[in-house]
Amino acid sequence: MDFTAYLGIETRGLVDGAFVLELALEPRHLSVAERAHGGILFTLLDTALGRAVIAELPAGRGCATVELKINYFRPVREGRLRASGRCVQRTRSLAYAEGDVVNEEGKLLARATGTFFLTDTLRQPDRERI
Amino acid sequence: MDFTAYLGIETRGLVDGAFVLELALEPRHLSVAERAHGGILFTLLDTALGRAVIAELPAGRGCATVELKINYFRPVREGRLRASGRCVQRTRSLAYAEGDVVNEEGKLLARATGTFFLTDTLRQPDRERI
Amino acid sequence: MDFTAYLGIETRGLVDGAFVLELALEPRHLSVAERAHGGILFTLLDTALGRAVIAELPAGRGCATVELKINYFRPVREGRLRASGRCVQRTRSLAYAEGDVVNEEGKLLARATGTFFLTDTLRQPDRERI
Amino acid sequence: MDFTAYLGIETRGLVDGAFVLELALEPRHLSVAERAHGGILFTLLDTALGRAVIAELPAGRGCATVELKINYFRPVREGRLRASGRCVQRTRSLAYAEGDVVNEEGKLLARATGTFFLTDTLRQPDRERI
Repeated sequence: MDFTAYLGIETRGLVDGAFVLELALEPRHLSVAERAHGGILFTLLDTALGRAVIAELPAGRGCATVELKINYFRPVREGRLRASGRCVQRTRSLAYAEGDVVNEEGKLLARATGTFFLTDTLRQPDRERI
Repeated sequence: MDFTAYLGIETRGLVDGAFVLELALEPRHLSVAERAHGGILFTLLDTALGRAVIAELPAGRGCATVELKINYFRPVREGRLRASGRCVQRTRSLAYAEGDVVNEEGKLLARATGTFFLTDTLRQPDRERI
Repeated sequence: MDFTAYLGIETRGLVDGAFVLELALEPRHLSVAERAHGGILFTLLDTALGRAVIAELPAGRGCATVELKINYFRPVREGRLRASGRCVQRTRSLAYAEGDVVNEEGKLLARATGTFFLTDTLRQPDRERI
Repeated sequence: MDFTAYLGIETRGLVDGAFVLELALEPRHLSVAERAHGGILFTLLDTALGRAVIAELPAGRGCATVELKINYFRPVREGRLRASGRCVQRTRSLAYAEGDVVNEEGKLLARATGTFFLTDTLRQPDRERI
């Protein structure tokens, strides 16, 4: 079981060109301030953006996150989260993706943009991460 | 038990002016590519930077992450991770912090910079997140 | 004459909810590699995003850039550039805006997201920048 | 004359491992709020970081900015600015650099981190920017 499954993240797949993930918030996802930890929203976005990039590649290729900036707008404590990622630009070796996380009412909770390094296999190489 | 404790993150506290956290990697922290998921390194950094900011505030005040950019340099699969965060600048309402994650050999795995909104209580207000 | 006018940047104003600026590239805007310097595209975006934020505020209020991340996609050497900025989220003290720069054919050259601190006057205060 | 020379930016070169640039602020560098425009500080940092990366490469190779995040701390109106950039990490195709801008008293005005794509020539290729 990988990290996202361990956290309870569910894969919805491509919906209207965006890669979609969902998560039903539980007490284990909360920070000491009793809000969803920033790391939960980041994990949703990093995964949604990376999967959106992979969805554009030939089978068997993968990607590794080079950088990702996340902006948070609103704390959240309960309910279902929905993350969507889109691949906006791609060259031979790099891709740029964007996405956001909304709550059940569709309110924007966080937004991210990131750069991904494209690899020849799903496993990223040990030497070529940055 | 909050999210960081659930993940097994250990708090070392202030060491030479930086707030330090550690984590012994386990299989549950790995992505499908069998590397530590980017969300694990992010959670370490978001927490280390936020705690470094709080360490500079009067007792009872807190902070919420406005934005955080993480850059990844090297995949990691096992061993102990050590994250350090420092508060670099602070005004009445905002703070800027930086930090990194290294492995047991001290090799740089990731680096982050972020902006934090300062709050009057440890619980961030519902309306003033961005 | 302010910096943007000095560079030849033209203000188009609000177009379909986005604040639009244009620039006809000249040799003075090029880097040693004979492409538009990254600072030119950044100046267009920082200004477009900031003006999009100010357009949402009551008259007389202003904003200061807290942070801005720009991603570059394609070098450009000549022709007209068009930058658009949108204010996506706003609270009492902070705003988040996004935007992009395209060339005459509408090709995406760069994209930016940023956080702005809202001020009571158009002049930002000396003490409250971060 | 390239864009940085046009703006009056002076190259100091490598000082203690960092690439250093300086600029004496003039009225043409100011925004309508009569502070140095964010684009001026960004141009200093983008150039300092890129030159720090190039200084680590074999002669004849160059780089293009993939992404750069800048955080602003303090407005500035006059005096000399000093930007320093350091290359922190490098692989075969990418580099990560950091830097800051200080005023004459050494006060921190802005800080940036960025990713650079390494190219075989000083001129970046038209197709491989992102």
